[in-house]
Amino acid sequence: MTDPNRPAAGATPAYSELEQRHARIYRFEHLGSIVGWDQAANMPPKGNEARAAAMAELDTLLHGLRTDAWLRDLLQRAEDEPLSDWQRANLREMRRDWRASNALPARLVEQRTLATARCEHAWRRQRPANDWAGFVENFRPVLRVAREEAQCLSQETGLAPYDALMDRYEPGMTSAEVERVFGDLKTWLPDLVRKVQERQRDEPVLLPQGPFARPAQKAISLAMMQRLDFDFDAGRLDESTHPFSGGVPEDVRLTTRYLDHDLHQSLMGTVHETGHARYEQNLPRSWLGQPIARARSYGIHESQSLSFEMQLGAHPGFVRMLVPMLVDHFGAQPAFEVDNLCRLMTRVKPGFIRVDADELTYPAHVILRFEIERALIEGGLEVEDIPALWDAKMADYLGVDTRGNFADGPMQDVHWPSGAFGYFPCYTLGAMYAAQWFAAMRRATPDLDAQIEAGNLKPVFDWLSQNIWQQASRWETPELALRASGERLNPAHYRAHLEQRYLG
Amino acid sequence: MTDPNRPAAGATPAYSELEQRHARIYRFEHLGSIVGWDQAANMPPKGNEARAAAMAELDTLLHGLRTDAWLRDLLQRAEDEPLSDWQRANLREMRRDWRASNALPARLVEQRTLATARCEHAWRRQRPANDWAGFVENFRPVLRVAREEAQCLSQETGLAPYDALMDRYEPGMTSAEVERVFGDLKTWLPDLVRKVQERQRDEPVLLPQGPFARPAQKAISLAMMQRLDFDFDAGRLDESTHPFSGGVPEDVRLTTRYLDHDLHQSLMGTVHETGHARYEQNLPRSWLGQPIARARSYGIHESQSLSFEMQLGAHPGFVRMLVPMLVDHFGAQPAFEVDNLCRLMTRVKPGFIRVDADELTYPAHVILRFEIERALIEGGLEVEDIPALWDAKMADYLGVDTRGNFADGPMQDVHWPSGAFGYFPCYTLGAMYAAQWFAAMRRATPDLDAQIEAGNLKPVFDWLSQNIWQQASRWETPELALRASGERLNPAHYRAHLEQRYLG
Repeated sequence: MTDPNRPAAGATPAYSELEQRHARIYRFEHLGSIVGWDQAANMPPKGNEARAAAMAELDTLLHGLRTDAWLRDLLQRAEDEPLSDWQRANLREMRRDWRASNALPARLVEQRTLATARCEHAWRRQRPANDWAGFVENFRPVLRVAREEAQCLSQETGLAPYDALMDRYEPGMTSAEVERVFGDLKTWLPDLVRKVQERQRDEPVLLPQGPFARPAQKAISLAMMQRLDFDFDAGRLDESTHPFSGGVPEDVRLTTRYLDHDLHQSLMGTVHETGHARYEQNLPRSWLGQPIARARSYGIHESQSLSFEMQLGAHPGFVRMLVPMLVDHFGAQPAFEVDNLCRLMTRVKPGFIRVDADELTYPAHVILRFEIERALIEGGLEVEDIPALWDAKMADYLGVDTRGNFADGPMQDVHWPSGAFGYFPCYTLGAMYAAQWFAAMRRATPDLDAQIEAGNLKPVFDWLSQNIWQQASRWETPELALRASGERLNPAHYRAHLEQRYLG
Repeated sequence: MTDPNRPAAGATPAYSELEQRHARIYRFEHLGSIVGWDQAANMPPKGNEARAAAMAELDTLLHGLRTDAWLRDLLQRAEDEPLSDWQRANLREMRRDWRASNALPARLVEQRTLATARCEHAWRRQRPANDWAGFVENFRPVLRVAREEAQCLSQETGLAPYDALMDRYEPGMTSAEVERVFGDLKTWLPDLVRKVQERQRDEPVLLPQGPFARPAQKAISLAMMQRLDFDFDAGRLDESTHPFSGGVPEDVRLTTRYLDHDLHQSLMGTVHETGHARYEQNLPRSWLGQPIARARSYGIHESQSLSFEMQLGAHPGFVRMLVPMLVDHFGAQPAFEVDNLCRLMTRVKPGFIRVDADELTYPAHVILRFEIERALIEGGLEVEDIPALWDAKMADYLGVDTRGNFADGPMQDVHWPSGAFGYFPCYTLGAMYAAQWFAAMRRATPDLDAQIEAGNLKPVFDWLSQNIWQQASRWETPELALRASGERLNPAHYRAHLEQRYLG
């Protein structure tokens, strides 16, 4: 508490009590984060029921702590206390937390839990069975609850209903703004995709030949994390079906998965999650436990994973560093040549699946989902109307025929069955911010690419640490972007990055 | 709730509320068990501070739930409600829980936490430095608090002070009873040790030659767990510095450790922990969450690990099953011959360290500690007096000279620095009960040894499941022993087992 940003507690009784209460919430959240990671990475099947019950008990406790009526009074009184800038920003985030926890009536929270649990549970079987009709039965109640939730949040925040849902993931972002940047994308991206496909048509590219022993894949993953300055004293790498970055900032648990014949999944999965992990590991230590020390938003979080995976991971300088590791573990093969690996990582091929999409076609998957889910929440689109609209947009944006394929169509993501409407835009906003950060870095360090080529990643990490990681939730997102890069979100950098990489 | 042991809740409002409250406590304990296991098996060093804070917050919450004054009223009212036998036994265990949680004033709990944390923390450095003088400074306050604690518990329970401490681990056991059985041991064990040493003097025994690759050790550990019917859908095996069995009954987490040149540690460590694990995995499912479904006591828990490690693990039939696994992974060597491995496992050699002691000299380590700690709590023995008494007893019981070696003398165990007075007897009580269980099994299944030789362990597991595991805390320990084996604790079976194995 010798931090100059923290005046003596005596003068700020209400604010100080709020800090204590949030520190307590943080400590309980720690338990949930670790057992949640454990559930995905370690837990045997028969542990699930007891685990779910324990986590639900914790959720109930946390909900109670967050909705304690006394908080409203403390938040009010703290407004009039003499606070430092950081404390005032922390108070703003506490208020956001309070609003998010209290906006929904308990009845609606319960309905949401039931509807999404049922829908997601059934979806795990229905998706492989391509059972759209069965899915619709469970998805209709999920949408009904989400619409009601959007109305509640809209009344509370004054935002449009879909915007109010999106605000949970990307505070301050509006659908008007998303429309503006996605609209811009739509004017040039389809043409770029066509041009690049044309150009790549006769380009030779070799696939690395497996099998690739899993311990060797793991050793390379660990070596890459080391090169990316992951702090192994404050985190670890494990395996799970779906890679993620979990745990707590003091102890980040990231996971990847190893496939016998596909190196790309584990290696780029690890690089991606390491981006998330380094953000968490480098949030401001002295504020950990307070809402201000949280990562700014999901879009900004994706901007870190994509800074690592797309900006850095597919950079020829980074690939050059990777090659000796591959040769060391799997022996030399022609596919391990730097130019070939770079071509492989930038290969453009429109497909059905978002998570398997290349850098260039990925945004089309996101735009399509944004347009459909917004219409579901606000535009009167009904569940029955999704497939036709999906097919039309996939044909339009990516030129692929998805008719009748629900499993790899509107049923492919976990987001909708679990009620996470408003999340999808974060992925592409993240990709745009990542390009914007690297443009700013190149202005600050004109020989940045030569540095990366020489294996020196320090300028990248220093810039991210100073401008993003250490800022945590100090600023609202537009202000964060402005301070970091001199401007608010500007998709021109994303376009320039893609044109340079794919046509340059 | 169709269990005939559970009448409708309507008739038992107080008891039913108690069940609900204990189920909630159980769910919170689940979180503590998993993050506690994670702390030992996974956590990187920088995670420790946040983890300790999160676990302390959970402990505070649990203490609050356990000492809620309303419980006293519920316990009182439930006594007059129409309960089944199981419910009444559950109520008895709830009362035990209440008493244990409420016996100590908050001030004393806090003093104990501070004193033991400081002493144990310093001990980790002081022990390797053989710094007895430094240790004494921190240990004196630990003893002072323990004596006060013993007084409090004594007043609450009516037991003698040391007995009141022991009652936390082995409910119902008294020091008079421990003295009786240990006194009996002392009349014949030293002589037996001498005879066996004499007999083994010229017996050839070969040590397996390493190094032993760790993945192979792990594969054998897993194969042995499989043979011992560990349910891998409800638990897993990991590594930690000190092997233990943790987690929850629905998801048991056991750990072992692998040394490059010592197979015995990992293999027998795994067999030992698997005994603990199977007890937990086979507690009565329909009662999980209630105090009655907990393992009966630490002594009974040790009787399971020692049933597996000593009764079964060192059985020639079990060793015969182990040999092909060893040869498979490490190739044939003369030391892997069945007779040699059996001789190795039963080699008697008095030494300084309890945890490294063989089956025959182990009780001497326990008796010595029991006698010293009882005198510390009740007999006016002071911390300064320990080394001389330790040296004298080690010379007397084991014929070894420990003078000046505090590190491998009175500083070797974590129990005293952490204030766990009264635990040590459980180890030898467990060994005695294990022998008593196997004697009862042999009466029930006269060809038990032939069955084990033939690789059929089912009679062992069936007997333990029916008589111990499924009984959980249904009975007080003497009643459990009586129902299981026809008599209360009887050390004659232990003597017969040792004489048969070592002189037979």
